[in-house]
Amino acid sequence: MSPPSATPGTADALLDALRGAVGARHVLTDHDLVAPYLVESRRLFAGSALAVVRPGSTAEVARIVRLCAQAGIPFVALGGNTGLTGGGIPQGGVVIALERLNRVRAVDPVGATLTVEAGAILAEVQEAAEAAGMLFPLTYASRDSARIGGGIATNAGGLNVLAYGNARDLVLGLEVVLADGRVWNGLKALRKDNAGYDLKHLFIGSEGTLGIVTAAVLRLFPKPRSTGVAFLGLASARAALDLFVFLRDRADRDLTAFEYLPPFALEIVLRHAAGTVRPLTGEHGAYALIEFSSCRPGIEARHELEAVLAEALARSLIEDAALGAGPAQDSALWRLREAVPEAQTREGGSIKHDVSVPLGLLPEFLERAGAACVAAMPGLRPCGFGHFGDGNIHFNLSQPVGMDREAFLAHWERFNRIVHDIVTELGGSIAAEHGVGLIKRAELARYGDPVALDLMRTLKASLDPLNLLNPGKVVPPAPDDAA
Amino acid sequence: MSPPSATPGTADALLDALRGAVGARHVLTDHDLVAPYLVESRRLFAGSALAVVRPGSTAEVARIVRLCAQAGIPFVALGGNTGLTGGGIPQGGVVIALERLNRVRAVDPVGATLTVEAGAILAEVQEAAEAAGMLFPLTYASRDSARIGGGIATNAGGLNVLAYGNARDLVLGLEVVLADGRVWNGLKALRKDNAGYDLKHLFIGSEGTLGIVTAAVLRLFPKPRSTGVAFLGLASARAALDLFVFLRDRADRDLTAFEYLPPFALEIVLRHAAGTVRPLTGEHGAYALIEFSSCRPGIEARHELEAVLAEALARSLIEDAALGAGPAQDSALWRLREAVPEAQTREGGSIKHDVSVPLGLLPEFLERAGAACVAAMPGLRPCGFGHFGDGNIHFNLSQPVGMDREAFLAHWERFNRIVHDIVTELGGSIAAEHGVGLIKRAELARYGDPVALDLMRTLKASLDPLNLLNPGKVVPPAPDDAA
Repeated sequence: MSPPSATPGTADALLDALRGAVGARHVLTDHDLVAPYLVESRRLFAGSALAVVRPGSTAEVARIVRLCAQAGIPFVALGGNTGLTGGGIPQGGVVIALERLNRVRAVDPVGATLTVEAGAILAEVQEAAEAAGMLFPLTYASRDSARIGGGIATNAGGLNVLAYGNARDLVLGLEVVLADGRVWNGLKALRKDNAGYDLKHLFIGSEGTLGIVTAAVLRLFPKPRSTGVAFLGLASARAALDLFVFLRDRADRDLTAFEYLPPFALEIVLRHAAGTVRPLTGEHGAYALIEFSSCRPGIEARHELEAVLAEALARSLIEDAALGAGPAQDSALWRLREAVPEAQTREGGSIKHDVSVPLGLLPEFLERAGAACVAAMPGLRPCGFGHFGDGNIHFNLSQPVGMDREAFLAHWERFNRIVHDIVTELGGSIAAEHGVGLIKRAELARYGDPVALDLMRTLKASLDPLNLLNPGKVVPPAPDDAA
Repeated sequence: MSPPSATPGTADALLDALRGAVGARHVLTDHDLVAPYLVESRRLFAGSALAVVRPGSTAEVARIVRLCAQAGIPFVALGGNTGLTGGGIPQGGVVIALERLNRVRAVDPVGATLTVEAGAILAEVQEAAEAAGMLFPLTYASRDSARIGGGIATNAGGLNVLAYGNARDLVLGLEVVLADGRVWNGLKALRKDNAGYDLKHLFIGSEGTLGIVTAAVLRLFPKPRSTGVAFLGLASARAALDLFVFLRDRADRDLTAFEYLPPFALEIVLRHAAGTVRPLTGEHGAYALIEFSSCRPGIEARHELEAVLAEALARSLIEDAALGAGPAQDSALWRLREAVPEAQTREGGSIKHDVSVPLGLLPEFLERAGAACVAAMPGLRPCGFGHFGDGNIHFNLSQPVGMDREAFLAHWERFNRIVHDIVTELGGSIAAEHGVGLIKRAELARYGDPVALDLMRTLKASLDPLNLLNPGKVVPPAPDDAA
């Protein structure tokens, strides 16, 4: 089903109606003002839009949606525009930019919940929790510009998933504007609620194709009293798996991060990231950045980590370890992990895959995918790094030294096939934490279970029968549909 | 929409076809054999069925569903028949009893997952996890006869939700037979997967009205190395809330249970439950059973609990405490909580409400609902107990002493109105952990958000257009529909 396109008369009438609904200054049509909403950070996609509309309330979002629906013109909700899959890039129609819908409506430190509008910046949500003495654990690199509604719409992951889960696991209730402009008020602050179907999970992760999240009740957690960070030298990815199982068994959810780096990742970080220094004297087959956290007053996470690492060393699970002595050293160790994407950008062209496999198959995946990619292009430098503890690897490929960047990137499709074939064979996911958007829609059509794809189309058709909500994203067309 | 009813000829032809599909001995039509499948433990509902069919494989479930769909005859999947809402009680049509579909297909201690068929007994799933050195935390009183598919279909709660979540939070993947007999294979063992809509959450908690869960991939956890249990005397429900916030802040997820008992609950347990003894010398305004768990080798949960309770005592957050000295004493303390339902049964008629409210409103709820119920019937004995840490109270009402049991139970509807009005005013749920089934469908119609109810009907109609999957349950009819 193709999204309907607007006739000029319809479009003008809609723009007038939108100005009446939200005020003329919040309906942007000027090319320079609209332009930033049509591209994303990696510049992989360029969109087009009739206008960008900036509602200031849920009621205004609902009014915009009703007007668009009456005109038969599609719309896409946009948060901080930090998505990595093109999911927020409009392909015609109206952009509903949620940046003004950004209030923290309530913080309840006793109930451990926070009620916030979709356009609030993630970092500000974290700060509101912290001001109440609590933790909102969702966090990722774009936290200073990403908006919480986008994190919910994409079921974002990030650096704290191991202990606290994905965005989905942190949402208790939602307020959603539906395709016809009705508002579902599901802002419940409950830990248990089986009164009917769980509707919130339908909208979370649907990337704005089933409804527009306008507000959410989020879970808060006790703020850890102490943390400890270590950077470890390991023999191999297999040793990393053994170590992870060992740590999980002894620390359970005190193990709040287990991030993986291959030697190539550390090498380019040390080469390109200002102020980084080699954390260990020798070189190793693999590296891990791990973090322990503790809420318990009498137990320092750092000491707990030290004791467990001593046992791991004695059991030859690790080759060497650098334990941060305090916040400054901890940050420096974290920087070695967090600087990988930026170092890769500086190292040249990079073809990226955001994949997951069952935990126990991570070493096999890294070995097989690495070997297959290098066999397909000698000189290629695989850089599979990231959220090892979640089974989620950013399996990126840095171009061979000296190769033309654009010529290299032209091979993206070929490497998709190699990597995603192996992921699928291992029972993994070709879209682990960044979502599908535009970039993986065809891949999903290829690898998705046909029954699942059909269920997705059924849900889309039933909740958005006119195909106006972010059309062309996520849901692959039916095999017999040319669109 | 009323479920279609079978004409005799259709029914006979279907029974023949079912015998062909699964073998004659697995198609029960004899009255005595069918009878146990038509009633539930509380005998609140009596159903009727053409037959009970016992498939031995997912393929057989699919075949049964296709045959029923072709005949236009409804069907309901049944696990251990331990549900408390009548959700599994057939109202005509075919019962698909999943008791033979009970294999543990795989246990993966490295990936921390377990793949199991829907008909496996919950206790056996727990034992399979334990045999692999891991914990499957879902547990409730009926664990020895409840089947995991029912727990998933109802998003069951129980005694470990505080630290590990509801059934929903413990499921990574599902295999589901759809209304038309197609099988969705979503048995992924992944911690992160954003490849399209999250379909599993649609089926979990839908009580068999959207599909039949035939297998699941479950999350396992490290098995705690130590636990500590205490039974506490408190000034009031408000003191219980203060204590909970204090413990959560210091122990985070080491606090694995926080169960609440009013004085009346302890009194009837001591009166009726064999072998129970008063745990504290004095009497108090409220009681709590709490449990700490620890995976960390060097830290005994009991010592951690003792230290935190000493601080709580010094801060006057508790009045008295009995700390279990070992497994036998811990069990005896747990028994004081677990025996409440049985003690209530022995104490006479009981009108039950399974509700939740935001944590911070629990004391207000208990006070207001208790006072309102007693005002409505002097001599009534409110017994609001249960999963305080989840905001979930089993707000049960024991009959006045000497009143006729049946005469008392005839007031159920009146007390529903009193209790559910207050729950709704406080932003709570009228169906916290047991689901909706038959018993709360009219209540859901009354209290549910109209937009949410309409979304539920839309989902039901799109996934089960012939209304054959467990018809008449959960989803209230549209206001203009007489059915």
